[in-house]
Order: sequence, then structure tokens, then C-alpha cells
Amino acid sequence: MNIPQTSFPRVVIIGGGFAGLALAKGLEKKDIQVVLIDKHNYHTFQPLLYQVATGGLEPDSIAFPIRKLFNNLKYYHFRLAEVTNINPDKKEVETTIGNLEYDHLVIATGSKTNFFGNKNIEKHAMEMKTIPQSLNIRSLVLENFEEALLTSDFEERKALMNFVIVGGGPTGVELAGALAEMKKGILPKDYPDLDIRQMQINIIQGSDRLLDAMSNQASKKAEDFLINLGVCVWKNLIVTNYDGETVTTTSDEKFNAATVIWAAGVEGQLINGLQAECIVERANRIKVDAYNKVVGYKNVYAIGDIAAMMSEENPRGHGMMAQPALQQGKLLAKNILAEMKGKPLKAFVYNDKGSMATIGRNKAVVDLPNWKFQGVFAWFVWMFVHLFSLIGFRNRAIVFLNWLYNYVRFDRETRLIIRPFKNKNSQSFK
Amino acid sequence: MNIPQTSFPRVVIIGGGFAGLALAKGLEKKDIQVVLIDKHNYHTFQPLLYQVATGGLEPDSIAFPIRKLFNNLKYYHFRLAEVTNINPDKKEVETTIGNLEYDHLVIATGSKTNFFGNKNIEKHAMEMKTIPQSLNIRSLVLENFEEALLTSDFEERKALMNFVIVGGGPTGVELAGALAEMKKGILPKDYPDLDIRQMQINIIQGSDRLLDAMSNQASKKAEDFLINLGVCVWKNLIVTNYDGETVTTTSDEKFNAATVIWAAGVEGQLINGLQAECIVERANRIKVDAYNKVVGYKNVYAIGDIAAMMSEENPRGHGMMAQPALQQGKLLAKNILAEMKGKPLKAFVYNDKGSMATIGRNKAVVDLPNWKFQGVFAWFVWMFVHLFSLIGFRNRAIVFLNWLYNYVRFDRETRLIIRPFKNKNSQSFK
Repeated sequence: MNIPQTSFPRVVIIGGGFAGLALAKGLEKKDIQVVLIDKHNYHTFQPLLYQVATGGLEPDSIAFPIRKLFNNLKYYHFRLAEVTNINPDKKEVETTIGNLEYDHLVIATGSKTNFFGNKNIEKHAMEMKTIPQSLNIRSLVLENFEEALLTSDFEERKALMNFVIVGGGPTGVELAGALAEMKKGILPKDYPDLDIRQMQINIIQGSDRLLDAMSNQASKKAEDFLINLGVCVWKNLIVTNYDGETVTTTSDEKFNAATVIWAAGVEGQLINGLQAECIVERANRIKVDAYNKVVGYKNVYAIGDIAAMMSEENPRGHGMMAQPALQQGKLLAKNILAEMKGKPLKAFVYNDKGSMATIGRNKAVVDLPNWKFQGVFAWFVWMFVHLFSLIGFRNRAIVFLNWLYNYVRFDRETRLIIRPFKNKNSQSFK
Repeated sequence: MNIPQTSFPRVVIIGGGFAGLALAKGLEKKDIQVVLIDKHNYHTFQPLLYQVATGGLEPDSIAFPIRKLFNNLKYYHFRLAEVTNINPDKKEVETTIGNLEYDHLVIATGSKTNFFGNKNIEKHAMEMKTIPQSLNIRSLVLENFEEALLTSDFEERKALMNFVIVGGGPTGVELAGALAEMKKGILPKDYPDLDIRQMQINIIQGSDRLLDAMSNQASKKAEDFLINLGVCVWKNLIVTNYDGETVTTTSDEKFNAATVIWAAGVEGQLINGLQAECIVERANRIKVDAYNKVVGYKNVYAIGDIAAMMSEENPRGHGMMAQPALQQGKLLAKNILAEMKGKPLKAFVYNDKGSMATIGRNKAVVDLPNWKFQGVFAWFVWMFVHLFSLIGFRNRAIVFLNWLYNYVRFDRETRLIIRPFKNKNSQSFK
């Protein structure tokens, strides 16, 4: 990989998510060369993927070109590639476009969907961790409705209009709420020939409450909101299989559904080359110390979802979400600079700013450290926080405009099948 | 196809472009059942495809869901399907989702890229008639730049940064201008490691002037604008082949280019089932009389690009563009209603409102029937007309916001490779 040689130390960052970009930002205009490698040429604002999947936002409004962030930064380089292996002995990463030496290596590859080894589910269920995946869901939902129009078989039609979301965390809850709003406001108008009462939205949670990482209050209210929107909430139910037609569970409960969205777990997006000892097997995360250094290595770090910083308070590491990623990226930048100057490093302390989830129009739940609230105000707080967390003025403006439009008009206008998911060989793919 | 039977006559429209939608609009709330069939579930605003291809607009802002247009129209039905055959003897269309009887059949299938039988060019060149095709161009341009960074072979790098646009009509001119603006404002910042002076944009026109359907004044000025933007304009030059590496022409001139965009012609998107006599072979268009009736058939019409209404003034039929399509669709609605009431029909008279093309920031050419002008004012007129021709308030607002942003910031922010074109099996496609 032809990256210019400089006299500055080279920091190679793998992954342009929240963690990787926060780190890159923190190293700006210091005597450091930064090379960021990602398999996409854009940063994805993952918290809003569910709105892309349900036609509320265009994909381009939650993506930001990484190169633009690096404009005018002389020692910053971006490369579109996949890292195939890392070689800490040679201080080198191997990628699809060649090898690259590093002085500091930061693994910020994030997470991917965890199917817990179930190949059937992996094959037949939809996932929603990337923009193309979200667009696939958008296409599939609409394609299933188009198909439902055509069949005269009652059971088949019902299955095409039956949605199963596995996982009752924020992703599952937000997706279920958004689908319920489509059911209410849009689909009956778009498909007047269908009996929309036959559309069912199921959310299946393994534990005894939705949003089980949040407060009881938030869980309770989120469930109320969903039930009021007509969603079927299943708790203490574990999905065991999905063969493309039927979802089976640990109980007698079965679901015949053409669309199953798997939001039941994530695992680290590991790369090859690290010793087995520094991997937490259960979650495929990398063990790091309080300075995000990978245990057993020098000058190799992991931040964000991929990093498991285990402590007494956090025996499994921090939650795999935006806040720890952002904070770890920011601190690591400071620590790398401190180390260069021979100054003492600062251990990571997570500043829990709270968490939130939205269920629909005027319906959200917010847990702040000292204040828990739900409803309309929570919804405005949710929108405000997400709007201002987006990167780029254009994205913020476009998302704001879409939300305003959708709110006033009770609409979601990007219900377009631009690349069909089911019939990939169709003319319309081209 | 299960479309409810009513006592009203059934008009089946094939194609939801300008012509098909104008017709559907004209039949609203009359005693008529309308069934519109399209292979996409959205209408595409084709005049702005080049901005999608060059990262200026998100695809969703120039697409509009057809079903939304039919909301609350009781006797309107949309079906997502491809028509495989029409059978005028049985008054039936055959589609990928079953057969359907009609009382009136309107063919509004539009046009597709015409490669004039050259299979090599068809295989290797890009086309830009649909949103997926435009997104393919967007991905390819960016992928080629990423690849140019990696090679140390001078000729290969030059070819990756060499763009050949074949065809000097509005599409070619607008695309060349947009690429030139990317070269000027964006690519040097995004790819500081590349020598952007090596990027070449060529536009090849077979005749002796660009925009040869417009005034000499417009042609001259468009050429000046392009040359000032650094585009190489080739006239009186015919492309004979492209093997994926080299473009050959009727002269000695050759171009080694990784990206060739074919904008040199369109032909009708024919469907099977019509007699050979009513097809104009050269352009694959359907011969119609002054009422858009297909010659030799009863109750079968063709409107828009697919229709060739030949007369003394228009020996080859009207231009394959939005205005004749819109006007024919509108008039046909009136004529179908008039015929039902036994009233006399009105022959089509094209009202030429003029034509325009934009080359870039503050640079456009406008030919009105009695006034031809170029430059900044023409550019504002162009923007105004296009903005207000878009369907839907949301689309207008989003496009306006993008244009405002791009204008103020000299930017085009949707430079995202969401679905790679070159490396379709890449992880990032998923």
C-alpha cells in the first residue's frame, strides 16, 4: 500500500465507526500520520438504520464520506480495503490492497450480527448492521406486500404480512415501532386491496422485559407503547430456528412469517492474527486493559464494540453502543499523544450519559442518570440528541427536514424498491 | 392478476414515467378503472439522474412511490410487474404476475439506451437511464479513484482517471459538466495523493456540434463552458468500439479509459405482441396516429418516448423527452373520456416550450421559442423549472436543500459507494 513515509509515527486505524473517527479527530493536527482503513468509503450512523429500513430516511442522509472528514489534513490517509490479517511481530497489517506497517495499530472494527451459530437463521433472517442490509429490509418489506396482493392463498398472504423481530433491545423495539406506524398510516393507503388487519408485527424477547439494559420504568412504558401500536410482544421466549417459512421457539409458539429480522445480539467483528488468549470467545471481543491496549501486545489497541474492557463493575466489558466507543476513541487519542511525550496515561472511566429508545411518534423512553422520563418530551429529547450526533450539516438538515415532513404528514416517503432483495435477477435491479 | 371487476371501463397503463403518470392523473375521479403496471414501484425523474451519478443528489430525492400517487383513488391499482407480451386479439396483457384484460391499453414504456447493436460497448460501457444504473456510475467513478491510488503503473492510473462520455446531447453535456466540477472542487481534496491533472474528461459527439437539437447559440456556449471547465470536447467523431480498456473511433483517435458512459442514443422499450408493421425499426418506436392510437389496432395507444407520431414537420416523430410525453399523456386522458361520451377527439399538437441544459454552477443554456439565453440567469431558470417539475413536496424540499448546500459549499456530499459496482462480491455489498 503506497502511503507516503514521514518522520511522524504512523497510527493505523481499522474501522471508521464512532470509535475510529473519534480517535482520528483527537489526533488531528498533531505530529502523527493517520491511516484509516474501512471496507466502506463512508461512516454509518447506525442508530438510525432502522429508519432507513422502514422508509423514513434516505440512506445517504445517515452516511458521511470519510474522505471528506480528512480533507485538508495533510498527514491523514484513507484506504478502502478489508484487513485480512494483522501481524504484530512485523508491526504490519495485511489487507486486500497490500500490506502496511504501523507504529500504533488501533482495531476499531465494531460489531456484526450474532446468530449464535445458527446457520439456518443466518441464511433466512434479515440483519440490520449496515446500510446495504437496511436497504435489503426496506426492499423485502415492500416486495412482500406486493406479493401479498397477488396470492389467493390465505395462509401465504398472512405469512407475507407477518413480521417477526427477534430481540427486544433498542434496535428491535425501534424497528417494531416503526413497522407499526407504517401499518397504521401508510400501508392501508398504499395497499387498499389488502386487509391490513392481517398484518402482524411480533417482537420476541428472551428475557422477561423489553429494553432490559434500561430501567424497569422504560421497559414497562416501551411495552405499553408497542402494545398500543398493535405490536404483539412476546417475552421469555427464545427463538430456536427459522427455515425461511416458520419460526420455532422453545415453547409451542410458532410463527409463519416471510420476514424475520434478527436483532437478538451482536458480536465483535474480529480480524485474524491475534492470539487466542486475548479473545473473549462468547462475544468475539478483544480483551483490553484500562488504556484500551490489547492484553499481551505492545502498540496494539482495540476500541469500541470490539474491545472488552473487563472490570469488577463491568465483568463483560462496556455495552456495545455508541457512547463507550466515542469516549474510548477520544481518550485513546489523548493517551497516544501523552505516551509520545512521556507523560502519564489516563485510565478509561465510562461516563454513562444515559440511554434512550424511540418507539414512534411522540413516544420515546429516556433514562438519564438521575432522571427517567417517557412520552412526548422524551421523544423530542431523542430527536434532538440524534440530530446533533449526526456528522455533517447537510445530513442534519436533510434528516430534520424528513422528520418534520414525516411528522406533519404522517408519512414515510422513501418506500422505494431500488434494488430488489427477493428477486435479485429482476430487470429492475439494473 | 386479481384486480377487482367494476362496471367501469378498464384502462391499463404500462409504465409510470412522465407519460403514464400524466395520463393517470387526467383520468382521476372519472368513471374509469386504472391499472398501472411498472417494473419499479417508483417514478423516476430522469432529467436529474446525472446528479445522482455524480454524488450531487441522493437517489431517493428524484424517485417518488407510485402507490402514494394512487392513495385515496378508489379505482386505481398499481402492480409491480414486467409485461412480457400483449395480446390485442384477446384484449389482454401478459405479465410476470399473470394476465390482465383491458378495455383500453396504453403503452408508455419509455426508452432505454441504444447501443446500436454493438455488444462490446453494451457489455463494457455504463448507461444512465435508471436509478440503479446511475448509482452504478456513482460507485464506479469512486471505485476507480480508490484504485488509482493503489497502482504504481502510470498508464493504468491514467486510464482509471480517464472518463469518456459518448454523446453530446443534454445527458452527455450535463454529465461532463458535473464530472468537471467534481474534478475542480472535490476530488483534489478527497484524493490529495493523486495528481488530479491526470484526470481527463472527454465528451465525444458524432455531429459537428454539442446539443445539436438546440440553437447554434446554445451549442456554442455549452462548448465554451465545458472547455473552460477543462473538458476535452471531440466533435465529428464516432465511437466504433470499447473493449473495457480502449475506446476506438472512426479516426485515429483512441482513448484508454476505465469509465465509458454511453449517452449516444435511446430507443423505445418495446414489448412483444405488436405486428411488425407498426414498429419503426430504426428507433424501436411504435407508430401512432395523431390521437396516439397505435396504427392498425383498436383501443391500443402508445404515448411518450415509445410513440412515434410521424408527420411532415416531425418525420421521425417527436423528441424522446419529457415535454411530448407529458403533453401526450394529458391529451390522451381527455380523448379517452371524450370517446366514452361520444364526443369528437382532439389531434395532438406539440406545444414546444423550449429546451435547456445545465453545464455547471451558474452555467446553463436555455432556448425558449422566442428567446435564447445562457449563463447565470439561464442556470437559475433551469433550477427553478426542474425543482418545480419534481413530484412531491418532500422531494422538492430535499433537492432544494441539497442544491443550496452544494452551491454555498462547492460540495457534493453523497459520494458514497453503497453498493460497489466493480467488486460485486465484496463484503461491503452486504
